Amino acid sequence: MWHFDLSKFSKRLAVSGSGIPELKTILGGVVLQEHLSLRTFFAKSVGLTCVLSCGSTIFLGKVGPFVHISSILATFLGRIMARLGGTHEDMSRQYEMLVAAAAVGVGCCFGAPVTGVLFSIEVMSTHFAVRDYWRGFFSASCGALIFRLLAVSDSQQETITALFKTNFRIDFPYDLPELLFFAFLGLICGLVSWACLQSQQKFILLIKRIPLTSCLLTKQKTVYSALAAFLLATTTYPKGLGCLLAARLSMKELLNTLFDHQTWGLLSVNNSTTMGGLQPDDLWREWGDAPGGMYAAFTAFLTIKFLLLIIAMTIPVPAGYFMPMFIYGAVLGRLVGELLALAFPAGISTEGMAAYITPGAYALAGAAAFSGAITHTISTAMLVFELTGQITHILPVLIAVLLANGVSQRLQPSFYDSAIIMKKLPFLPRLGGKGHNGAHGILVEYFMDKDVVPLPSGASQAQLNQLFCSARCSVYPVVNSAENLMLVGSVKRKELAECFIRLHKQKPESLTSSGLSDWCHIEPITAQLSPKSSLYQAHRMFELLGLQQLFVTSSGQLRGVVTLRELRKAIEDLANGVIIPYVHIHS
Amino acid sequence: MWHFDLSKFSKRLAVSGSGIPELKTILGGVVLQEHLSLRTFFAKSVGLTCVLSCGSTIFLGKVGPFVHISSILATFLGRIMARLGGTHEDMSRQYEMLVAAAAVGVGCCFGAPVTGVLFSIEVMSTHFAVRDYWRGFFSASCGALIFRLLAVSDSQQETITALFKTNFRIDFPYDLPELLFFAFLGLICGLVSWACLQSQQKFILLIKRIPLTSCLLTKQKTVYSALAAFLLATTTYPKGLGCLLAARLSMKELLNTLFDHQTWGLLSVNNSTTMGGLQPDDLWREWGDAPGGMYAAFTAFLTIKFLLLIIAMTIPVPAGYFMPMFIYGAVLGRLVGELLALAFPAGISTEGMAAYITPGAYALAGAAAFSGAITHTISTAMLVFELTGQITHILPVLIAVLLANGVSQRLQPSFYDSAIIMKKLPFLPRLGGKGHNGAHGILVEYFMDKDVVPLPSGASQAQLNQLFCSARCSVYPVVNSAENLMLVGSVKRKELAECFIRLHKQKPESLTSSGLSDWCHIEPITAQLSPKSSLYQAHRMFELLGLQQLFVTSSGQLRGVVTLRELRKAIEDLANGVIIPYVHIHS
Repeated sequence: MWHFDLSKFSKRLAVSGSGIPELKTILGGVVLQEHLSLRTFFAKSVGLTCVLSCGSTIFLGKVGPFVHISSILATFLGRIMARLGGTHEDMSRQYEMLVAAAAVGVGCCFGAPVTGVLFSIEVMSTHFAVRDYWRGFFSASCGALIFRLLAVSDSQQETITALFKTNFRIDFPYDLPELLFFAFLGLICGLVSWACLQSQQKFILLIKRIPLTSCLLTKQKTVYSALAAFLLATTTYPKGLGCLLAARLSMKELLNTLFDHQTWGLLSVNNSTTMGGLQPDDLWREWGDAPGGMYAAFTAFLTIKFLLLIIAMTIPVPAGYFMPMFIYGAVLGRLVGELLALAFPAGISTEGMAAYITPGAYALAGAAAFSGAITHTISTAMLVFELTGQITHILPVLIAVLLANGVSQRLQPSFYDSAIIMKKLPFLPRLGGKGHNGAHGILVEYFMDKDVVPLPSGASQAQLNQLFCSARCSVYPVVNSAENLMLVGSVKRKELAECFIRLHKQKPESLTSSGLSDWCHIEPITAQLSPKSSLYQAHRMFELLGLQQLFVTSSGQLRGVVTLRELRKAIEDLANGVIIPYVHIHS
Repeated sequence: MWHFDLSKFSKRLAVSGSGIPELKTILGGVVLQEHLSLRTFFAKSVGLTCVLSCGSTIFLGKVGPFVHISSILATFLGRIMARLGGTHEDMSRQYEMLVAAAAVGVGCCFGAPVTGVLFSIEVMSTHFAVRDYWRGFFSASCGALIFRLLAVSDSQQETITALFKTNFRIDFPYDLPELLFFAFLGLICGLVSWACLQSQQKFILLIKRIPLTSCLLTKQKTVYSALAAFLLATTTYPKGLGCLLAARLSMKELLNTLFDHQTWGLLSVNNSTTMGGLQPDDLWREWGDAPGGMYAAFTAFLTIKFLLLIIAMTIPVPAGYFMPMFIYGAVLGRLVGELLALAFPAGISTEGMAAYITPGAYALAGAAAFSGAITHTISTAMLVFELTGQITHILPVLIAVLLANGVSQRLQPSFYDSAIIMKKLPFLPRLGGKGHNGAHGILVEYFMDKDVVPLPSGASQAQLNQLFCSARCSVYPVVNSAENLMLVGSVKRKELAECFIRLHKQKPESLTSSGLSDWCHIEPITAQLSPKSSLYQAHRMFELLGLQQLFVTSSGQLRGVVTLRELRKAIEDLANGVIIPYVHIHS
């Protein structure tokens, strides 16, 4: 029977990376204690500050770490609340706090409360309770409000406005045929996201295989990080290759230029005098006046940053990967938009009215579609509207995001799911496409683990101790007798160990004759499977109830157990054609 | 044991009203066959067309019926798909189709795909699977796209833009102190929504108690409808009382005027000459030049329409109640906004910069907050942005919506839940506030129905027939023997009846000696409760798995059953203090 050893993972993975894959695992029902500790909080905060101070050199973001940090805060707030209010602290309440915390984390990064809630739901959960909605929106709104108010009190702004305010045309935002180009952009973004994730995984496997890098990555993390950062810094040095990458711009300035409502192709022709310094309105010249021209700069950015980003992702520091993806998508969209503006200099209007193409809108759609494809989310479409303060392009952006998602969801698991798989954290794969139908025709009895160790409730302490030592299960089923096998309840290994210790402290003679239920709490069974339940039903119960395992009974008798491992294997076997669903009789 | 008699409700309730309460019930797991039939589809379509042709006289909308109509279409599409593709047609697939259909219904009404998905989730479901997200967004986007494309092909517009395009100031949308006024508006909206729902329920009880109206409503629906419509039409006649209600404007024009970016208080002073005809830019004069002035008109609208709306809601015709609420909230917000503009004619700016108050923004927030409070949804905030094409006021609108929701969720169930309660449809109440904590301390054994009729699997056909006739349950538990009571599975009453009929057609002698499992399919048990499970756990399982009942077993032996009725009674008893939660030992 399968058991997930926490100690192996929790300490090593606590700080580096975005923290979202681990949070998703926690929300799936697994306890990763160290991941939500105060130690992690301080390490992550300090590390993130350092990484962000590198600006666009290392080209990493902060969404993931913000979510992680706010989750730790939420966990501690929850504990304080439970202690002060005397309320019952249980899994479901912790779950609610974590979901709200994730919403706050995303909402604060962008001042975007709606996206905060929706994005965190899409990334973190497999299902969502509507009653948590209000709380999530409330906390995310408070977070976003404070974030924007601080900008005002800091005298950066006179009142609350959008973070990346755009000035797109409102009366005639886009011509109808442009919808096709937006759809095309969505498809491209989906394919590039696939290439990006594939290369990233291949690269990680590669550096793990090469002895030198593998040794550096496991034993000399500081040296590896320094080397990688040095490589990134030299490549993006503005007087060198960086002149092609608009490297003088910060990540915020990059987005500001890319979402510019002007058509640079037209501007460059009309007014080609170059200024000396970087005026706010002339930031786009970092792209427009790059050697080889704007199109070369975009292409260089897309190819070079592709490689740099993959390297940056391997550095073991606290960092987010959403923002780089978002900017990468914006560049991709801007390139498509500028090329279209070049191809149709007077617009594509069919009825004589001149409607110029706005490349900034394509940058918007590209950013949303690419980041959406990487993370398998649709709420990135909302993000660009909340960020820019304009919602005129809602239909084209949605079309691009949906198509990009359609492509990428078919080709691979999401960025966060890949990370979960690579980190070997327990997870429940989706039942998508073909599996959705086939799963109805596979019965639990074909894939359950029959080799289950039951504890008879009347057994002596010595017998139980022997069973405890011989079989390592995280949860033991308790049956009425070894012959009858009627399932009475379950007991956690941890709890059983504590009961043994408590027993040894007391006088032994008074307890030797008593049954298990007399000296240890037996959890009643609320959900179980039948050998005739289908894989689909089993998957649905695991997904909805956030379970780690279910016992299989037939007429009350214990027959086996299904854990995440069995479920995952069955889904993989179904996808690979190893097991073939039988035709369901009662369809 | 409790059994929900479908035939009593399905025929009577199929066409009239919005249809959303019934859909919510269906998504909760109850079968209401007639509600999704083709007959209902045609009746609803024709009826809705007639109601909508009344314009703002009857003042009813179309959101609910659109959702209902698209749900019927989805059901039929699902059936065709299952027949053509040979796929497995099950509850969960039907559920997915219905959720997507609801998204399309809402999305089409407003050309707002994002709101379509979010609103339908909030209104219909208690929980939501993230894997349905993509499909919901895709279908809602297609719906919204076609709806807006039709407007273009109809030459109403040159390209796709928002339905109610606004021109609010972008650079300085609102001053920071205004956030307090928006919060205040949210609180007012919450309170007014409470008054509105309370009055509506009281009025319905009143007309049911008065013999004349009660008789009309049950037997002479046509006469009742005609009388009510006549009353509404005479009250809103533009040359009479209607001059105070801007009755010459259609519902679309009403919203267009209310969301106007100008401050009418200032306009009326500057330019008080009245035009003869109704020019598009002068539609606001219907309000501004009303006898007694604009403020009197708003107040008259709020009081008179309050009464008219309550009467209109009792007319048994297919109609939606969302749009009237939305407009009502917009008027409420506009009144607050115009009063603020009167109080602060030069704006509330603290640092010398003149920032006039935009009453249109308050109308926006009022519409979102009031309709959100009535329906207990937050996505109405998204709706106003998608409708107007501007998202600058996202924070103030969200604050108003959240506060309005906070007030109304505390005071009463939502409009749709009230309808479910009044129509006596089965539903699962929320475990809110106090119940959330107390529910952990109430065990299933205290409120389960112990009077359950089990079918022994080895019993003779005659015995089973007798049990079948004596006890009306929708689902019977099957046990191994009448003494042992080990739960083997369950069988639906309907299925059992079919099995009996099939048996009688065959030769009787070959079957009399065989057990129940030989001639009837027994469904295995996947979820069950223990007598020691808590009310909270039971509620969570019903909510997540969309169940109608659960059997209670202890060590495999059947002990009782919990249906929605027992659960509802336990929750009510807990809220009223009839049962007191014991202190949980293992907290």
